Amino acid sequence: MSVTRRVVLAGSTLALANPFGDKVLAQGTSTMSNASSQAPGFYRYKVGDIEVTAINDGFAKRPLEGFVKNAELSQVQDAMKEAFLSPEALSITFTTLVLNRNGRLTLIDTGNGDLGAPTSGTWMANFRAAGFDPAQVDTVVISHFHGDHINGLRLKDGTAVFPKAEVMVPATEWAFWMEDARMNQAPEAMKGGFQNVRRVFAPIAKDVKRYEADKEVVPGLTAIAIPGHTPGHTSFMLSSGGGKLIVMSDVTNHPALFVRNPDWSAVFDMDADLARLSRHRMLDLAASERAQVAFYHAPFPATGYIGKEGGRFRFVPVQWSAAVL
Amino acid sequence: MSVTRRVVLAGSTLALANPFGDKVLAQGTSTMSNASSQAPGFYRYKVGDIEVTAINDGFAKRPLEGFVKNAELSQVQDAMKEAFLSPEALSITFTTLVLNRNGRLTLIDTGNGDLGAPTSGTWMANFRAAGFDPAQVDTVVISHFHGDHINGLRLKDGTAVFPKAEVMVPATEWAFWMEDARMNQAPEAMKGGFQNVRRVFAPIAKDVKRYEADKEVVPGLTAIAIPGHTPGHTSFMLSSGGGKLIVMSDVTNHPALFVRNPDWSAVFDMDADLARLSRHRMLDLAASERAQVAFYHAPFPATGYIGKEGGRFRFVPVQWSAAVL
Repeated sequence: MSVTRRVVLAGSTLALANPFGDKVLAQGTSTMSNASSQAPGFYRYKVGDIEVTAINDGFAKRPLEGFVKNAELSQVQDAMKEAFLSPEALSITFTTLVLNRNGRLTLIDTGNGDLGAPTSGTWMANFRAAGFDPAQVDTVVISHFHGDHINGLRLKDGTAVFPKAEVMVPATEWAFWMEDARMNQAPEAMKGGFQNVRRVFAPIAKDVKRYEADKEVVPGLTAIAIPGHTPGHTSFMLSSGGGKLIVMSDVTNHPALFVRNPDWSAVFDMDADLARLSRHRMLDLAASERAQVAFYHAPFPATGYIGKEGGRFRFVPVQWSAAVL
Repeated sequence: MSVTRRVVLAGSTLALANPFGDKVLAQGTSTMSNASSQAPGFYRYKVGDIEVTAINDGFAKRPLEGFVKNAELSQVQDAMKEAFLSPEALSITFTTLVLNRNGRLTLIDTGNGDLGAPTSGTWMANFRAAGFDPAQVDTVVISHFHGDHINGLRLKDGTAVFPKAEVMVPATEWAFWMEDARMNQAPEAMKGGFQNVRRVFAPIAKDVKRYEADKEVVPGLTAIAIPGHTPGHTSFMLSSGGGKLIVMSDVTNHPALFVRNPDWSAVFDMDADLARLSRHRMLDLAASERAQVAFYHAPFPATGYIGKEGGRFRFVPVQWSAAVL
């Protein structure tokens, strides 16, 4: 299957600039602004000498219908029931990471900014509640160019959110999305994705640093090329002292669906076959190493482990700890 | 087995006043007071018209050795590994509930107060962070008389923590612990438990309201006698509108051990055989009704569901929600 054909298929199912924008269910925000709100959505844990802070950016609700390309709705509903989730709609959550290494701050991905579903966009409040300031951020590492990962870099009005930060992106992802010829040949439904990448990156194009796979992006953080979800989709291995964290990015969408059923393909996977191979490879790695993992779309705090029994994977969330361990 | 014999067995393994006090591992508190702390440990969810807030009271670490009376250490370690928890020590957490029904506040249990492990005692800070004040509490409902459930009622120096609250306790539990003859006959290791019950309740003995099983304790909250852990140990069914929550109390200690292996007995169960029957009864109820459950000793936010496959139970934590649902 050619890249173009893949793109057409992906583009026909969603607008990639904001994959959640079109299909978000009607969702009041009144509960979000009540006096009775949740505690701020951040959670800290240690990976060796690096303190990781997971920052939640809210959620977007999607109907299940049409979400998994190669499974019957009833099968998807059964998987939701097994996880005690609603068989009607999926709450897809967004959780980015802050790495604090001796006071140097690196973000991995940035959330929806002010361009996501009305129930998202809580990233900045949670980031500040965790004691951080966007002006302190030294580096922003981007895993791939979907809107829910990059839109936090730049507000709708054009403002750069992290004025001091060096922005680092996968070289392969940059080459794919920034090629004008490819954008011009893309179907209408796909053009928004290309345009959004330009909206975010064009003003800083000369300063964006393109990183290669299998190299350290920042100290302790090594990029893993794991394409399929997008052409340059990247996971990371974070290592420090004896600690290790596999940052999965979008190797799976919601674990209840795609860790349990790694052969299923979400509509967001641009090359479903390649994404499936990548998913098996990363889940096998995590299970065999018993390494801690972080998933962008796992329920907050979006970190845990991958078990494998009887040939099936399962995601085991960490036990919440009052102490930062 | 007579009650006295059961008491002797239970008393020989631990001091019941503070079941965690003696066996707590050395545990620095420096990470707790760091600038880099966790978000406050409270989590809200709705049960019909009642807003529930789970309030965390930190944790106590215990060695695994000797914790499960009827399993080999290696079996217990295997269960910990299955849950990706440390095979060396168990972090037992404490999570109480606040029920807010039209502004009337009911607590279910109170945490360790200032008498628990150094890594516990965070209840009041979390309670205040959730916007509550102890002077607002209308009712405190106690599930049973172990120190980690009742010590939050009264500080070491004798101060009553909830000055306005009516205190409601299981009639059976009161009858057991407040009988002086039973205290006087108890073995030394058990006497602390009786004395602590008097420390907490004697100053308010004439005002304490004793509730019976199968009756509403406060509107929407029905007591379920489920003895074994203690003679008057109580679970609750919370019902409002279409919503339902089974408050398990100490039907199990950590779910990774005792939901997965309901025949195992923790040292805290005063009558292990009766506790085992009670545990099966409540887990079967929760699994067959697919009802939401809360466990005092499940990892925070200590609420989820009970699944049953291949004859084995599993605890499925709720998906953290930024909106209060």
